[in-house]
Amino acid sequence: MTTLSPSGPVAGQRKVRRATMNDVARLAGVSIKTVSRVVNDEPGVHPSTAERVLAAIDQLGFRRNLSARNLRRGSSTGTIGLVLEDVGNPFYSGVTRAVEEIARLRGRQVISGSSDEDPSRERELALEFCSRRVDGLLIVPAGLQHSYLVPEMRAGTPVVFLDRPAGDVVADTVLVDNIGGTVEAVTHLAAHGHRRIAFLGDAPDIFTANERLRGYREGCVRAGIGYHEELVAMGPHDESSVRTTLQRLQSMREPATAIVAGNNRITVYILRALAGVAERPALVGFDDFELADLLSPPVTVIAHDASALGKAATDLLFARLDGDNSPPRRVVLPVRLVPRGSGEVHA
Amino acid sequence: MTTLSPSGPVAGQRKVRRATMNDVARLAGVSIKTVSRVVNDEPGVHPSTAERVLAAIDQLGFRRNLSARNLRRGSSTGTIGLVLEDVGNPFYSGVTRAVEEIARLRGRQVISGSSDEDPSRERELALEFCSRRVDGLLIVPAGLQHSYLVPEMRAGTPVVFLDRPAGDVVADTVLVDNIGGTVEAVTHLAAHGHRRIAFLGDAPDIFTANERLRGYREGCVRAGIGYHEELVAMGPHDESSVRTTLQRLQSMREPATAIVAGNNRITVYILRALAGVAERPALVGFDDFELADLLSPPVTVIAHDASALGKAATDLLFARLDGDNSPPRRVVLPVRLVPRGSGEVHA
Repeated sequence: MTTLSPSGPVAGQRKVRRATMNDVARLAGVSIKTVSRVVNDEPGVHPSTAERVLAAIDQLGFRRNLSARNLRRGSSTGTIGLVLEDVGNPFYSGVTRAVEEIARLRGRQVISGSSDEDPSRERELALEFCSRRVDGLLIVPAGLQHSYLVPEMRAGTPVVFLDRPAGDVVADTVLVDNIGGTVEAVTHLAAHGHRRIAFLGDAPDIFTANERLRGYREGCVRAGIGYHEELVAMGPHDESSVRTTLQRLQSMREPATAIVAGNNRITVYILRALAGVAERPALVGFDDFELADLLSPPVTVIAHDASALGKAATDLLFARLDGDNSPPRRVVLPVRLVPRGSGEVHA
Repeated sequence: MTTLSPSGPVAGQRKVRRATMNDVARLAGVSIKTVSRVVNDEPGVHPSTAERVLAAIDQLGFRRNLSARNLRRGSSTGTIGLVLEDVGNPFYSGVTRAVEEIARLRGRQVISGSSDEDPSRERELALEFCSRRVDGLLIVPAGLQHSYLVPEMRAGTPVVFLDRPAGDVVADTVLVDNIGGTVEAVTHLAAHGHRRIAFLGDAPDIFTANERLRGYREGCVRAGIGYHEELVAMGPHDESSVRTTLQRLQSMREPATAIVAGNNRITVYILRALAGVAERPALVGFDDFELADLLSPPVTVIAHDASALGKAATDLLFARLDGDNSPPRRVVLPVRLVPRGSGEVHA
């Protein structure tokens, strides 16, 4: 491959003044107003004049300053703000992709940031995006306090919370059926004869972790196997805490014969801890993940769709931008159990 | 969980005017100039006055309009533009995360978009970001023509290409050692006795796919096993084209006994096609991926670090923003072979 520099070196050279509308007008031999009309798709310019203006724009490499135009119009900045927990987590990158796709269809760009479960970082990002006058905000909340957003919401910036609800404001929210999911996981394992079913969840102050624990508890009661505190280990978890927990669960007088994992990270920690172990407990993980079907045994999961979550939240946001003034909505997306092998081991 | 609306319903209500600097000045009983000084951290305001202003800001929920401020200053907009192939691909979400982290340390937000290997979409995104006057651009190029960026680069917007080089401009670029990686993969397989080693690569017009093919060819020559065109299948690939290719490779008079996969997607397609097959060819995949070590057999890969790639490119971009005027640089990051089992099967 040859790399040519069409007009001398670019990086490392002195700056050249950016072409202005004035330069375009001069080169095309028209007024600035005419250039402005062409650039903003306004009527009243003869086609041949418009062509001359466009040729001058091309030649000079002129670009409109969108921020300036948007400010003058006092309207849309053409951006949507997205606050996630971690864009590096495949679940959230799936959400991001879906948000991006819909935003693109609606002529918006996505500006995003990761909170890392830190409420002050979430607030910092959300307010930074508001200061940039995003058209709307999508937030996977890390914290439980969101009254800091009330002035923005009152000023007309729509905010949709996803994956977890806002803590102390009434707002549009898209969730998945966390409780239903773990009820189903426990019911499934109990149907295969398990009576000692453990639950490894994320930190209990995380909404989804807490909901999934509630579902686990309800599932145990419904299955008639009772709820036993010693079978529950809430996080935050890492590989080593999961390893220790599994040892504890298996060295009990009545060991756990099955496990429900509270999210995709915990499922992977469990799989690592169990690698090479001959006698493995049955396992159902919350969240599907790539290659779950290729592992040995293939992993049974409670699946929900990151891209459906991103899509539902973004659709709701755009409905608000389009003027939907109805009361705040809470959408709960269904989950489904995908049996693959690890959850169908009999007790 | 109780959801309270601290001041009546928020979504669905009529818009309230956004608080202005004027409102803050009136409430605090100071001049607009004083409010401006406090907001912009300028000196010359008595601490008790500043406190009164901050209290008014809090009470009114006033937010600076950063776009307006940045425009007035005519300087940084505080954003970095990132054009990726697909943020939903775990490799690129790792890159994004690294870019985001460094940008954050430097007080910048990241605005990103996916090109989906479409050169016109790449151009559209990059120019859109330029119109928003991003401080700098990071691009994973989909196309081979980038002279459209020359006016921006000359006007002082630094651009760093990553993962793949620019097609027709001289610019800062961060790559991984694609050729070295596939040379090593072939050498490794040949050392285990394989002489019929196939290569399944991505579309040949993609820079990395082409480089990896070159490395494969060089590896074959170096190992003294010769280069045989019939053992190469370039993409684009999907699950079914990979399945067909594997059937072709195995039904040859001299079947392939080993495979080099050109990227993480192709490796996964191969794993799906081989699931349940008893006699499996040896396999080395380019790109590491989560759970590769937990598969059976665990997958040997050419590993490189998405986050190192994102970090190196972002560091280079900030060096330019800090005034580094040296000629364009090309950084090539090393790769390493991680033997796990699938590549150590003897012929």
